[in-house]
Amino acid sequence: MPKVGIASYGITKFTKDDSKIESVLLKSTKNLFDNNPNLSRNDIDAVLVSTNNNSKYLSAILSEMSGIEPKIAHSIESLCNSGTNAIVSAYSYIASGLADIVLVSGAERYDSPGQILEWDNSRGEFKHPIFWASIFTKAYKREFSVTDEELAIVPVKNHKQAQNNPNALSEKTYSFEDVINSKKLTDDLRLLDCSRPCTGGASILLASENTCKKFTDVPIWITGIGQKTTSAGFTKNIAFSSMESTHLAASTAFKMSKCNVKDIDVAEVHDAFSVCEPMALESIGFTDKGKGMDMIKELHITNNLKINPRGGLIGSGHPLGATGIAQTIEITQQLQSCANKRQVENAEIGLVHNMSAAATSSTVLILER
Amino acid sequence: MPKVGIASYGITKFTKDDSKIESVLLKSTKNLFDNNPNLSRNDIDAVLVSTNNNSKYLSAILSEMSGIEPKIAHSIESLCNSGTNAIVSAYSYIASGLADIVLVSGAERYDSPGQILEWDNSRGEFKHPIFWASIFTKAYKREFSVTDEELAIVPVKNHKQAQNNPNALSEKTYSFEDVINSKKLTDDLRLLDCSRPCTGGASILLASENTCKKFTDVPIWITGIGQKTTSAGFTKNIAFSSMESTHLAASTAFKMSKCNVKDIDVAEVHDAFSVCEPMALESIGFTDKGKGMDMIKELHITNNLKINPRGGLIGSGHPLGATGIAQTIEITQQLQSCANKRQVENAEIGLVHNMSAAATSSTVLILER
Repeated sequence: MPKVGIASYGITKFTKDDSKIESVLLKSTKNLFDNNPNLSRNDIDAVLVSTNNNSKYLSAILSEMSGIEPKIAHSIESLCNSGTNAIVSAYSYIASGLADIVLVSGAERYDSPGQILEWDNSRGEFKHPIFWASIFTKAYKREFSVTDEELAIVPVKNHKQAQNNPNALSEKTYSFEDVINSKKLTDDLRLLDCSRPCTGGASILLASENTCKKFTDVPIWITGIGQKTTSAGFTKNIAFSSMESTHLAASTAFKMSKCNVKDIDVAEVHDAFSVCEPMALESIGFTDKGKGMDMIKELHITNNLKINPRGGLIGSGHPLGATGIAQTIEITQQLQSCANKRQVENAEIGLVHNMSAAATSSTVLILER
Repeated sequence: MPKVGIASYGITKFTKDDSKIESVLLKSTKNLFDNNPNLSRNDIDAVLVSTNNNSKYLSAILSEMSGIEPKIAHSIESLCNSGTNAIVSAYSYIASGLADIVLVSGAERYDSPGQILEWDNSRGEFKHPIFWASIFTKAYKREFSVTDEELAIVPVKNHKQAQNNPNALSEKTYSFEDVINSKKLTDDLRLLDCSRPCTGGASILLASENTCKKFTDVPIWITGIGQKTTSAGFTKNIAFSSMESTHLAASTAFKMSKCNVKDIDVAEVHDAFSVCEPMALESIGFTDKGKGMDMIKELHITNNLKINPRGGLIGSGHPLGATGIAQTIEITQQLQSCANKRQVENAEIGLVHNMSAAATSSTVLILER
């Protein structure tokens, strides 16, 4: 398969502000162009927008506002996994030869309609994703004898790491006590266990091998792609303490990239809720089943930034359509050694894990310098 | 580029009924599987949903309801041009090697939010697309001295042709007098000049060359693809009497397919309003500027079904997300010589033209037997 690389990127600060979706899209796109003065509007063959916003024709609107007249232009939606779906789509346009340069721009507002999946009637009294996060947490705690106090390490670590991410929503660190004493939402879930919806945008530019090298001295290549949808309603899952779609997506991505989990120097994983981080690490294969919290504890104690250096979703905030793109930008910056205080030393191979709706679908990308 | 073909399809009747969007998606998908008993749910690598509906995660929902567990799954939106965008995306997944078989399912309800582009402030007092259709009609009539009576041929012809389309919304023919005497919506637009939003679904299965041949004895190949977005708000157009994005998309598609407009035996063009049919024919190159109505008159008098044999959007109805897919199914059936009473004799090369929002974006596909 021809090589496809990341040629540029742009991002906004994640906030709780009331900006229009078009403005958020434009802002990160403008930042992308500002970061790469050699890039012309005329170079861009396709504009893919990733969002759960109900507004229509946003790819054409962003194109007009940015001065781009692309061949291909549409919006892509798959709940939280929209951004990585759009990146994979951009990859396929380039690998197929239908496009040479593709702009992928993701944006969401704090009041995204993607937070509630009306179709899933299994959620009982809770409309928001806390319904499945509670069941996941209870199942995980029971199966692996993990306590609330142990899980609290995830938000403590990720809020701390977010303090070195200038675009993060989180503006302070929290202690274990803060997490445990934060508002109890359900038997198994506290407010600080949850990532927060917010307003934010992230844009990334993908290009074919030769073109990519024109726009950056340090191109980052997408060498592995894995995606899997196992269901839409989460009660079709067999296990609530692991992520089957993540496991399958990771296997496919590793196979394509010809590297394995031991080669990964840095990863962004989808910590929508505390319990998701250990579950994701286990399902990807970073550690054995039930050992995710041991790994996270060790990383936390040793100040090792390997997992979610930008603060993950819990620290950075979670603007759904932008999240997968922001994760990919973080890994790109890590592999380009320009992540400043968040830098993982000698990072050469990175991984992005994104998912939707109780891990009923997942995407795993492998990026290499 | 590797060959990508159409391996199967399914469609629903276009109606004014109140079905849920999930049911409409499932119905045409079920029809597709019924049409191809050799096809297994496990064969499908990607499920792309085309719609303007506000419901989220529809690709995963359709997958779960149909028993598919795809790798790639997301929704695609680009107003009326969504269906052909999804087909091109499916093509790129297969041509890139990321997928071998892709299901594209389009659906819309009669009350689609895609009918109104809130962002476009140029529409004045009219919220619906009649605002641009009126300006197009006035500009076209003025520039080429065309009368309302002449334009009325388009709905007369297309409602007539729709009577041989068992899935069409239209259930009767109309005379010139019926069109001229139908409710006047604006100075230049009558009710029967307009296609009608409706509830409908259409699904199509794309596959790589060898796989395609396993599922059908008469594979139809997508040999040309052209897409262009010139703007989002229609007042950025230079001319209101031609479709620049259509012209550019057609040029690209012809170039890729290595055939030209004279080779086209049958075409579906986007007649959202009467004036769109002659404008589209001229912009694609079937005839000279201002000569579209002469061509349509000639076809109508001689009962030549070459343009919009299924009745176009005016005759078939216009369920936005399904339209581009239904157009592509029609051309597929024509090239497979199974279009029954709608059959254009000896059709070997066909064209699909789809567009959005005053032709601010267009897709042109060339299909060959």
